[in-house]
Amino acid sequence: MAAISSSSVRVGVVAPGGRITPELADRVLAFAAGLDLARAVDLRFHPQCFASCGHFAGSDAERADALVSVANDPDFDAVWFARGGYGSFRLVEAVLPRLNAVARAKTYLGYSDTGALLGAFYGARIGTSAHGPMPSDLNRPGGEAAVLRALAFLVAGEAAANPAPAAAFNITILAHLIGTPYMPDLAGHVLMLEDVSEPLYRIDRAFGQITSAPAIRRVAGIMLGRCSAIVANEPEFGQTEVEIARYWCERAGIPYLGRADIGHDADNTVVPFGQEPYRFK
Amino acid sequence: MAAISSSSVRVGVVAPGGRITPELADRVLAFAAGLDLARAVDLRFHPQCFASCGHFAGSDAERADALVSVANDPDFDAVWFARGGYGSFRLVEAVLPRLNAVARAKTYLGYSDTGALLGAFYGARIGTSAHGPMPSDLNRPGGEAAVLRALAFLVAGEAAANPAPAAAFNITILAHLIGTPYMPDLAGHVLMLEDVSEPLYRIDRAFGQITSAPAIRRVAGIMLGRCSAIVANEPEFGQTEVEIARYWCERAGIPYLGRADIGHDADNTVVPFGQEPYRFK
Repeated sequence: MAAISSSSVRVGVVAPGGRITPELADRVLAFAAGLDLARAVDLRFHPQCFASCGHFAGSDAERADALVSVANDPDFDAVWFARGGYGSFRLVEAVLPRLNAVARAKTYLGYSDTGALLGAFYGARIGTSAHGPMPSDLNRPGGEAAVLRALAFLVAGEAAANPAPAAAFNITILAHLIGTPYMPDLAGHVLMLEDVSEPLYRIDRAFGQITSAPAIRRVAGIMLGRCSAIVANEPEFGQTEVEIARYWCERAGIPYLGRADIGHDADNTVVPFGQEPYRFK
Repeated sequence: MAAISSSSVRVGVVAPGGRITPELADRVLAFAAGLDLARAVDLRFHPQCFASCGHFAGSDAERADALVSVANDPDFDAVWFARGGYGSFRLVEAVLPRLNAVARAKTYLGYSDTGALLGAFYGARIGTSAHGPMPSDLNRPGGEAAVLRALAFLVAGEAAANPAPAAAFNITILAHLIGTPYMPDLAGHVLMLEDVSEPLYRIDRAFGQITSAPAIRRVAGIMLGRCSAIVANEPEFGQTEVEIARYWCERAGIPYLGRADIGHDADNTVVPFGQEPYRFK
């Protein structure tokens, strides 16, 4: 990834979990080139995005190296995670101590599995973590709108700090951060939670852990995003995901604040951690 | 469940997660009646085992009440969990403060989902928690041996305290206990871990959380039980469950101590927490 000099926002794409295809990267680049904001963004896919090592887009070392190199490179303004899958948590411990001052002033955008890195970075006060669409969302019906929203945020982002800061996570990924050294302090935050492809009993199980963790009980409240592609529960679970969220919030004494506009879909809002959700018009 | 007076060990069966059928209870009773130890054990299925409320064997209140009533009843010597499924964690917070001195001298036997209760009880120093077969195991091929092993432990159990105490958990269930107030102190324990019906990426993800938790890093070592009915990983994960266990143990500086004889199968050993694994001959 050679750097060029321009006034545009340079965004480096790396894949901390699963790989993407070069064809998807080409489609994202072609889509971005046709946008009004095309000249404002300079998008570079790191070759590591296309690497393969079992489940992952390259070995742990390859993925960590790519992320660290783009994060630490002053020629890049932002890091965009290519897709979720699984693999981000494996990198956290190795990546954190390698990030320099440049990396600490950068924006990191992704969701789903990459929430493990976003949460850890937020906890370590490294740059701006933001929950929002990824390049892989171009594969969704209506995914162009999601990718446009992400790029617009990366170009124009930086919402003002807000008295009720937000954070957004995949439910399962947040559950697996709890109790590790990488769990950020979310006291006073509006915590937005979404999930995909889980049966309701697992959403309930993860909600139980999340709302029982003393650290989480200090959030300002919980908003439930979309739980999509729910896997059939045998027998019928007996509560909807909204009832599950209300149930655990009430038990924990956490205000339930209604629905959040996030999820594994094209409408997924950008939520910069510690700030207000990004309003894209 | 009327109590009768005898010198046998009276075992109350309750279902903190999913329900069982009355037919299964009858089969377990008939099987137990034909054993050499039949006169040494007096097995009672609480009617709550057959209740139904969505996913669960009755509402949270019904399940908690049944567990508390049997646990607190001096006419019962042990509590045997009927099956796993999901639901134990929902009961922990409500049940713990209701247990009396009698409950604190009792043995609790189960595994899988019921590990949430076993772990919380162990953490609160309530009786003896033991990881081992449940009545539902009679449905497995060779399940008679598992049920016999469980009954023999309940009748003759009480292994001697050991300099290297053990604890055993389902990997996913332990991951969901971490960071909650119900996570027991496992410092110095040999921690045995098993799982069922998960793809390898989820086993890896949970292992990452478990071995990253500072509390877990103080265990004497980790032994890997059987990971059965592994769901296909797309793409191929690239590591076996043994390699996953070794990988995370090495990263965490936790000794990997080899395989443990536990799992969702008929051979599942009884592991009383804080003691040596039960040797059944």
